[in-house]
Amino acid sequence: MAGDPAVRVVVLRSEGPVFSSGHDLNELVDGDADDYTPVFEACARVMEGIRLLPKPVIAQVQGLATAAGCQLVATCDIAVAADTAAFATPGVQIGLFCTTPGVAVARSVMPKKAMEMLLTGRPISAQEALEFGLISRIAPADQLGEQVTELAQQIASASAHTLALGKSAFYQQIEMDRPSAYQFASKVMVDNLLADDAKEGISAFLEKRQPVWTT
Amino acid sequence: MAGDPAVRVVVLRSEGPVFSSGHDLNELVDGDADDYTPVFEACARVMEGIRLLPKPVIAQVQGLATAAGCQLVATCDIAVAADTAAFATPGVQIGLFCTTPGVAVARSVMPKKAMEMLLTGRPISAQEALEFGLISRIAPADQLGEQVTELAQQIASASAHTLALGKSAFYQQIEMDRPSAYQFASKVMVDNLLADDAKEGISAFLEKRQPVWTT
Amino acid sequence: MAGDPAVRVVVLRSEGPVFSSGHDLNELVDGDADDYTPVFEACARVMEGIRLLPKPVIAQVQGLATAAGCQLVATCDIAVAADTAAFATPGVQIGLFCTTPGVAVARSVMPKKAMEMLLTGRPISAQEALEFGLISRIAPADQLGEQVTELAQQIASASAHTLALGKSAFYQQIEMDRPSAYQFASKVMVDNLLADDAKEGISAFLEKRQPVWTT
Repeated sequence: MAGDPAVRVVVLRSEGPVFSSGHDLNELVDGDADDYTPVFEACARVMEGIRLLPKPVIAQVQGLATAAGCQLVATCDIAVAADTAAFATPGVQIGLFCTTPGVAVARSVMPKKAMEMLLTGRPISAQEALEFGLISRIAPADQLGEQVTELAQQIASASAHTLALGKSAFYQQIEMDRPSAYQFASKVMVDNLLADDAKEGISAFLEKRQPVWTT
Repeated sequence: MAGDPAVRVVVLRSEGPVFSSGHDLNELVDGDADDYTPVFEACARVMEGIRLLPKPVIAQVQGLATAAGCQLVATCDIAVAADTAAFATPGVQIGLFCTTPGVAVARSVMPKKAMEMLLTGRPISAQEALEFGLISRIAPADQLGEQVTELAQQIASASAHTLALGKSAFYQQIEMDRPSAYQFASKVMVDNLLADDAKEGISAFLEKRQPVWTT
Repeated sequence: MAGDPAVRVVVLRSEGPVFSSGHDLNELVDGDADDYTPVFEACARVMEGIRLLPKPVIAQVQGLATAAGCQLVATCDIAVAADTAAFATPGVQIGLFCTTPGVAVARSVMPKKAMEMLLTGRPISAQEALEFGLISRIAPADQLGEQVTELAQQIASASAHTLALGKSAFYQQIEMDRPSAYQFASKVMVDNLLADDAKEGISAFLEKRQPVWTT
């Protein structure tokens, strides 16, 4: 998928009342450290894979997203939720604190709300998820698919090279101190400008015509 | 308190029009560095003590929280405020910039609003405090105590071991870069799963019964 | 300007429908790395210069702020926008991802919204900019100048030394881990207390009179 030029944007979607409820708890009983460790390594690989994928990934959240399902929403580049969706990190209620979901949630959601979600396990509404940073936008439930498709199509109309370079640079620079981030980002801008699609895009803009991308 | 199993959740509350106005200014005049240094060391110890305490700490904010009182709100794991409460970092107006309160405020409140609070010293309302990240939720003033008690009781119904482990891991991982945070959090999840309360909680969930915690 | 005691607060403002649209694209075509590198170095110097300036800087945003113009808004200490203003990082649409604007935007705006802005290039309204962290407050378009002047005057009434010390310390501590930030901030508080303006400000407060600043 990463190398397929026909795939320009990835949409993760689900059906029914639940978007994702995370791990299968049957995998998390009656085992030892050797059984559990690979489960969380695989989970982290999936999450980091979304961040490292050189294509934008949109979560289309039609229903309840809990635990690692909530982590998945927080991990996608963009998350659009139905106004009827809900979100929770309920592990605390079964004795298993949502620590790995918390890694992604803490990096999206305002800390005071993130801690309330994690310590209580209570669900928040789509409206709260928007206000506190977990998702990017809300759609009426019956227009969710349509609005996500329209969003994906707009993103897909951009240069694939530009999207890949920009997404990767964004997640790299947010881990740096600000002066280092500027040094890195300035270099990325120069590299971006030297690529064919930027030359074409800027020329097209100055000539008031539509660009034709090579990627 | 940290070692007393009867204490499961800590609620910090106050009475009257002021929640906390921070330092006693009489301690901050006519002294030298040797007088002032221990005051701020003690303040930082109190704030860090809340973060290190292996129990959830809820601020129940009935009134005005200013300077180190505002820092205290920002430091608690969860903050619930009356809709009549207000919040300020007014030190700039008396020549003493709220730099230490800013450490906690900057880690909760959106930076553009945090800087406005610090540079102007003006109070913000409970509604603004919620929108910009300083608090977790708002309650009507006459229901504040009741709503905090209900919240505390729900949190107290969870396993104490799970709460302690989860709170500690949350504050540790937010200081790490994301890949390191996942490595750390995955190990915490495995340790959590091997503890008695997770075994009991997951079994109870799969067997559709109430869990019985050992902690 | 940094050394001129008559300048107490800086307001960046513009006229017409656009606040700033960032770089002149004519400087970003038909060149090579040696041409482009100084452009982004100069841009980063301007942005870092605002952060390093020992005076508060307010962006008064009357119109559209795009690309490095949006970065400029995100960089100022405080940003007040007309309710008719709009904000975008549209580089992706011309093949040049807004990577350097993203450095400032990612440090103000909630990540899920920041990524949507960067990947789509779509403008957001002043109301959204406020909700997601890009600006500090909104004013009716016809009262923007008046409200910014009133805000600037209030800030200018504080001690210049206190403002300089507080602004600098804020941006230094947010790059540190929390315990280091407290150590640093505690030392800054002690230095602040030993300065004439804090002695005067605290004495004036305790004596219920107006302070007279020396800076």
